[in-house]
Amino acid sequence: MNKRFYSYNEFLKDLDILEEKIKEFNPSSFIAIARGGMSIAHFLAERMDIREVYMINSISYKNEKKLSSPKISNIPNLNGQKKVLIIDDISDSGETLKKVLEILKKTYPKIEFKTLTLFFKENSKLIPDIKLHKTNEWIVFFWDKEGQRRIDDLSSNQ
Amino acid sequence: MNKRFYSYNEFLKDLDILEEKIKEFNPSSFIAIARGGMSIAHFLAERMDIREVYMINSISYKNEKKLSSPKISNIPNLNGQKKVLIIDDISDSGETLKKVLEILKKTYPKIEFKTLTLFFKENSKLIPDIKLHKTNEWIVFFWDKEGQRRIDDLSSNQ
Repeated sequence: MNKRFYSYNEFLKDLDILEEKIKEFNPSSFIAIARGGMSIAHFLAERMDIREVYMINSISYKNEKKLSSPKISNIPNLNGQKKVLIIDDISDSGETLKKVLEILKKTYPKIEFKTLTLFFKENSKLIPDIKLHKTNEWIVFFWDKEGQRRIDDLSSNQ
Repeated sequence: MNKRFYSYNEFLKDLDILEEKIKEFNPSSFIAIARGGMSIAHFLAERMDIREVYMINSISYKNEKKLSSPKISNIPNLNGQKKVLIIDDISDSGETLKKVLEILKKTYPKIEFKTLTLFFKENSKLIPDIKLHKTNEWIVFFWDKEGQRRIDDLSSNQ
């Protein structure tokens, strides 16, 4: 699979576009899926003055063995929320996002949920409501272990 | 109060130093305090292969009125953890970090907790176990609303 580096510069530009798309939904709260959604949710929350930012955990592997279904934990308290945006980096197989959405909808049937990712794959089980890049590549995000070493790309515009 | 911009470049260099300090404690898990600790916890977790990353919420203001004490919510499930590092951006008054630490210690008396921030103020009520910069300035982090507009600083080394 081809590798593509997703830089901090590209991220900042994408946030401008995402902000406009999010405004149409107008959520009162964000939920980041750990770990991939953490920095995106953080940056979006700061720029959009959203103080209600939560996190949910999903584990797909245990002792390097893939689980039949992702294990979701630490469902946040969303009482009082009406519209909530679930945020992750990529919808790859889509299993995590699908499972998280199912559990949240079941736990909070009155809340309207939407999903956001930066990247998605065509065959994902869940195509996010808000998304930017369709890809078939392996994305190395600037926050990934490998991506954090790519400081040479900092000033590039790719 | 003087303003100081804390850039992404500076952050990446600081992470190298923080990683070494964290290794001495050797935690199995990170807790980010929302929102300020989110990106730091994310970046550190990725580079240190820590999959157990959680978040806790703290609210110091309600309707623009400062609360007498920060309100802590969404305490994560830490069963099975032995050493946990609590992460925030700055220990300013120190009230948030102090309250979070108190609640976590009370909820999980058998877990060893340590705290980490990038910045701290001399008169903070809690000086973190792991910290980098003592400051009297107003720090504009690159993830702040104002900081996200400072893309001109991206390629500088300040």
